[in-house]
Amino acid sequence: MTDHKSIEDALFESLLTKETFEGYEDPEKFKQYIPKIEQYKKELQDAILDEYKVDFPKPIDELVEEQLDAVDYLYKAKLLTPEEIKITDSSASEIVQNIAEGRWTAVQVFKAFAHRGTIAHQFTNCAHQLFVDEGLKQAQKLDDYQKKNGKLIGPLHGVPISLKEQSGYKGKITHAGYVGLIDNISPKHSVTTQILSDLGAVFYIRTTQPQTLMHLCSGNNFSEKTKCPFNIALSSGGSSSGEGAVVSFGGSAIGIGSDIGGSVRSPAAFSGCHGLRPTTRRLSTLGGVSSGAGQESVPAVYGPLTRTIGDIDYMMKTYINEGHPWDYDAWSFYMPWREVPKPQATDLTIAVIRDDELVRPSPPIRRGVDTVVKKLKEAGVDIIEFTPPNTELAYETVNKMYCCDGNEKQRELLAKSGEPLQKLTKWSLNYGEGARNYSIQENRKLNTIRDALRNEYNDFMVQNKVDFILSPVYNNVAPRPGQVYNWSYTTLFNILDFPTLAFQTGLKQDPEIDVWTEEDQKYNFRSKLEQLENNNYKPENFKHAPIALQLSGRRYRDEEVVAAGKLIVDDILKVNLLH
Amino acid sequence: MTDHKSIEDALFESLLTKETFEGYEDPEKFKQYIPKIEQYKKELQDAILDEYKVDFPKPIDELVEEQLDAVDYLYKAKLLTPEEIKITDSSASEIVQNIAEGRWTAVQVFKAFAHRGTIAHQFTNCAHQLFVDEGLKQAQKLDDYQKKNGKLIGPLHGVPISLKEQSGYKGKITHAGYVGLIDNISPKHSVTTQILSDLGAVFYIRTTQPQTLMHLCSGNNFSEKTKCPFNIALSSGGSSSGEGAVVSFGGSAIGIGSDIGGSVRSPAAFSGCHGLRPTTRRLSTLGGVSSGAGQESVPAVYGPLTRTIGDIDYMMKTYINEGHPWDYDAWSFYMPWREVPKPQATDLTIAVIRDDELVRPSPPIRRGVDTVVKKLKEAGVDIIEFTPPNTELAYETVNKMYCCDGNEKQRELLAKSGEPLQKLTKWSLNYGEGARNYSIQENRKLNTIRDALRNEYNDFMVQNKVDFILSPVYNNVAPRPGQVYNWSYTTLFNILDFPTLAFQTGLKQDPEIDVWTEEDQKYNFRSKLEQLENNNYKPENFKHAPIALQLSGRRYRDEEVVAAGKLIVDDILKVNLLH
Repeated sequence: MTDHKSIEDALFESLLTKETFEGYEDPEKFKQYIPKIEQYKKELQDAILDEYKVDFPKPIDELVEEQLDAVDYLYKAKLLTPEEIKITDSSASEIVQNIAEGRWTAVQVFKAFAHRGTIAHQFTNCAHQLFVDEGLKQAQKLDDYQKKNGKLIGPLHGVPISLKEQSGYKGKITHAGYVGLIDNISPKHSVTTQILSDLGAVFYIRTTQPQTLMHLCSGNNFSEKTKCPFNIALSSGGSSSGEGAVVSFGGSAIGIGSDIGGSVRSPAAFSGCHGLRPTTRRLSTLGGVSSGAGQESVPAVYGPLTRTIGDIDYMMKTYINEGHPWDYDAWSFYMPWREVPKPQATDLTIAVIRDDELVRPSPPIRRGVDTVVKKLKEAGVDIIEFTPPNTELAYETVNKMYCCDGNEKQRELLAKSGEPLQKLTKWSLNYGEGARNYSIQENRKLNTIRDALRNEYNDFMVQNKVDFILSPVYNNVAPRPGQVYNWSYTTLFNILDFPTLAFQTGLKQDPEIDVWTEEDQKYNFRSKLEQLENNNYKPENFKHAPIALQLSGRRYRDEEVVAAGKLIVDDILKVNLLH
Repeated sequence: MTDHKSIEDALFESLLTKETFEGYEDPEKFKQYIPKIEQYKKELQDAILDEYKVDFPKPIDELVEEQLDAVDYLYKAKLLTPEEIKITDSSASEIVQNIAEGRWTAVQVFKAFAHRGTIAHQFTNCAHQLFVDEGLKQAQKLDDYQKKNGKLIGPLHGVPISLKEQSGYKGKITHAGYVGLIDNISPKHSVTTQILSDLGAVFYIRTTQPQTLMHLCSGNNFSEKTKCPFNIALSSGGSSSGEGAVVSFGGSAIGIGSDIGGSVRSPAAFSGCHGLRPTTRRLSTLGGVSSGAGQESVPAVYGPLTRTIGDIDYMMKTYINEGHPWDYDAWSFYMPWREVPKPQATDLTIAVIRDDELVRPSPPIRRGVDTVVKKLKEAGVDIIEFTPPNTELAYETVNKMYCCDGNEKQRELLAKSGEPLQKLTKWSLNYGEGARNYSIQENRKLNTIRDALRNEYNDFMVQNKVDFILSPVYNNVAPRPGQVYNWSYTTLFNILDFPTLAFQTGLKQDPEIDVWTEEDQKYNFRSKLEQLENNNYKPENFKHAPIALQLSGRRYRDEEVVAAGKLIVDDILKVNLLH
């Protein structure tokens, strides 16, 4: 292990060449922030209601060592009542229906989810903020409304929705993973939070994200790392780290994450739920905090994480068609969510990417692709093997886009507090050409490369009548915390701006089956990055890790992607995450 | 006159402070290009068929001096046969219907338009290239297709469409106004040209544009300036200069222009037709040549110029819904053209901008606004007087966006040939901070200002239930060639990205009526720019100049804008440009 560790460190260091990391950390300045961080942590700790506190069977470190499946434990140890289980294992649309028909109250639903979500936090560190009391009041208001008016307030009446902390919340701190923003109180809700609230959603948790929002993991200076609920030794993914964990654990019916390089899909895939990265500008990001204001080369998007594909459809449809984001944010497309019927398997052509030619997928991912492709073929789907063109160019270009301001904005936000840089922050600041400030013409050149790539992939799909692209979300299942360096599989669809659904295959990693073969051992790594990533896969370390894939469609075909997702996940793979 | 001229020159010079104009002109280098330019001009001259040549009643200079209305002359001097008049004074949809029903052939239609368009060119210099022989072959092929298949090839079967030269045309030079690109042969049609061709359009003319495409006028080093057909002493506008002239003269049923700061609306307004600047990304600009590749802060759009609002609707609908630009250009929205019924006047609320607080409109424009507002009120439209907020910030910001690469790309394209800079090229290179190269963070800051402006205007419309904004297209009617400095009225809707229809009011300038009042004479100019612009309005110089206005809607509501345009132009104002 030490040997491996030192090889990893050496590889990591050898890949860090573009940033000097000067002008960031300042221990003296940071000292002033330590009491504020302590206060912030204390508020979170104090917000855990006594009645929701979990007695761990063993010290948490031992549970981590044992790779505890916390979801399994939740059921086996009966941490919730049968009624709470029943409620929290319902889809959002079922919840609304049950409230509408008087079987459940919003308060009842809320308490069950708040309980389950607070347990999720204790196992996974998914929360930055908990405010169960406020949520309870919201729920009570909804019940009062229903009683008085004899109808629901909206299509999300009483649905507990978790929110990535980055999305502004009226009257609360919004730091987006930057210690320097710990005094930043949002004057109002973000557009998305407001729309969800207007539609009847109830909030009680704002969830974790990494420093800078640019890791597929969760490290920051506010909290411990966030864990995968199905194996708490693993990362929940990122940057919507807490969303992955809380939704997969069942602590909210719908989670709202954001994705600029994989940040909805990675936590959904790693933690054990589904997540949609919509095409840009279908959901509003206005009122969110990040380093990306005004950056248009590869914009971040908001997207839902859920335990059913139907709930993704339900959330997108109600948010867009009844929430009218274009009335509050001129950047939002006036593009209603179309009713697209679930397709017939025999009408579909899907191109499958097994390897993006940058980083070889690990054995469980390969098994996932093999299994899904086999089942799709059996169902009558036409499968085309697809070697994606120009993935190296795409990866270089998108990584340059992230850093092309010479990390000026990140440096400003980080230097504000002088906070210590996380290892993966250093990694992400080193993308592209790191600290080199591009000229505007250079930035425009990146955009034209991006547009040519988009047309290359679009042409491939049009000319070959390919409906969707199936691919890994990442070259591995959930990594150990802090050990995720490659994001070529997710960023490809950010630079292409293709709507992409990360979905659970229903498979879990099995240390007995998912081993490197003898042939694998002879493999010549194509890059240090691949070596670093592949070396991290030791079968014994990834027990029960969820195996997920992603399905991408052409731009603005979000509806088609979700409809096909229902066919694949519900009908063909028969995945049921609601136990 | 001399006095005025020298005041104008002094003002102009005093406003030119941001560019040194170093690194552009190079007389030695330019010498190599002179024979190529001569050859290019000769080809255009040779392309005028003998039978289409016009015998001017007097030398052209005298006609210019007399402010000839060339359209009027066309009818009075009977330059076309009655049949040619009948055909060329038909809308695109009527043309298609007449061909479909066997009353006309595509060849017959084509010849009539080619004749009229070639006359237009002789009066207005609207063409960069004429290729009547090729168009005739295209038309013949369409007739053959119809004969063989008993149906039309598409919804634009046989419609003569003129194309701004900037849009790539297979096998032909595409220089976009840059002498340095005179050897640039387009390997294929632009996406828009190809789509129109596939839908059955016929081409024979590629039209003029100014050097750099950044003037609301037409000066370049390839040709004389382009004239307004209704008063050939005036500018046809720009940058789709030739489109304005040829469409208004009746030389094509539909023209395709591009608009980054007013370049569809100015030539439509000045020359005497209608023009739509759609929301970005509804029509594809792929395969066009400009300095703007990869520039996303304020992207150029393509848009139609026509003599009926119905034809704008027809073109947009067929292009989008049957042409499927998203199959050829991943930047194009998958946003079908919606069927929006013509609204009831009494259902509409329109906010009117009479003065943008930057440059005071001249008397004919004020009369245009007064007349239209009066008629709208009489028809039952609710009119709100609207002082647009932050117009100075909007104008500064959009102008900075145009030049924020420090004019690097423009300099590269101009320096390639070392061609002499047009006066208005110097003017436009001086926008914002001219030669200063912005950092990427500064560019992003401009984008956030833009987004805040968009939300400010969007909020105004949503909160006050305003359907549309009515405003001048420019502070004057068509200026004298080269005398157009302000574009605040058009660029406002580029930075807002609001779909905007420039439409004819049916009024023409009248030197007797449209005079500065005594009160006007006492006016204190708010800026040198305003002084420069207002000083250029001498009533006697603008005889018969068309008076146009523009109607803007919220983003992506192109359909609503066009539908309201039909109500206003056809029903309320009863404008008929088809004689």
